[in-house]
Amino acid sequence: MNRDPNPRYALHAQLDADTFPVAAFALSDLRLMDDANYPWVVLVPRVAQARELVDLDSSQRHALSDEIDRVSRALHDGFKPYKLNIAALGNLVPQLHVHVIARRQDDPAWPSPVWGRVAARPYTPEQLVERVALLQDLFRD
Amino acid sequence: MNRDPNPRYALHAQLDADTFPVAAFALSDLRLMDDANYPWVVLVPRVAQARELVDLDSSQRHALSDEIDRVSRALHDGFKPYKLNIAALGNLVPQLHVHVIARRQDDPAWPSPVWGRVAARPYTPEQLVERVALLQDLFRD
Repeated sequence: MNRDPNPRYALHAQLDADTFPVAAFALSDLRLMDDANYPWVVLVPRVAQARELVDLDSSQRHALSDEIDRVSRALHDGFKPYKLNIAALGNLVPQLHVHVIARRQDDPAWPSPVWGRVAARPYTPEQLVERVALLQDLFRD
Repeated sequence: MNRDPNPRYALHAQLDADTFPVAAFALSDLRLMDDANYPWVVLVPRVAQARELVDLDSSQRHALSDEIDRVSRALHDGFKPYKLNIAALGNLVPQLHVHVIARRQDDPAWPSPVWGRVAARPYTPEQLVERVALLQDLFRD
């Protein structure tokens, strides 16, 4: 277990490939998943070697809870979802990351969880610029 | 949003049907999912009307984070999983509940998330008694 913030933190290559940067919070980086099927972001705590939630200490866990709350409220405001899905899975990518996904009853995977249901639909460059700007507006203080 | 503990809390009928009681923590009830494919429990905060994590206030969220941590550590100790999966989905059952699932690389759904992959394998009465006792032992103070 890693209990101290560690300067050797680096984003995992697979997360780097699958997501785009949106914002940096106190603990975590917020990144957009490259799948236009859903408003889908991930929070990646900048804690070296963290793989499970139990690898965070108590203050880091509470900070992560606060950041999940902030992201959840912003997605609610910005996308009016029917339901939020929040998950730390990591079966394929070992670096700790938390999915926050705004679900609609007419989205392509509903009511199933999104993972492995429908092929990802990558953003076009124009869509990507627009979506990142919209998200960054939601997190402007 | 419901910000106060509420005496009118009641367990949702579907969760009642799908799970068995294991323990009561300060905020949440811990219940065993009736699926012997995985060590799979759910935490159900006893907060009336709560549907999303954002329906908890800050102290309730931090308490839930602490209870997720406690359950995660117990499942680690008791089952030595390769990975924990932790999720608040609620697309089908609207009452807020958090899944904590101990995953193995030889479990029937690996590496997919468990939902909707493999038919649930209900515990026999004998297995159920043994599993609940084992879990209760893990949470004895």
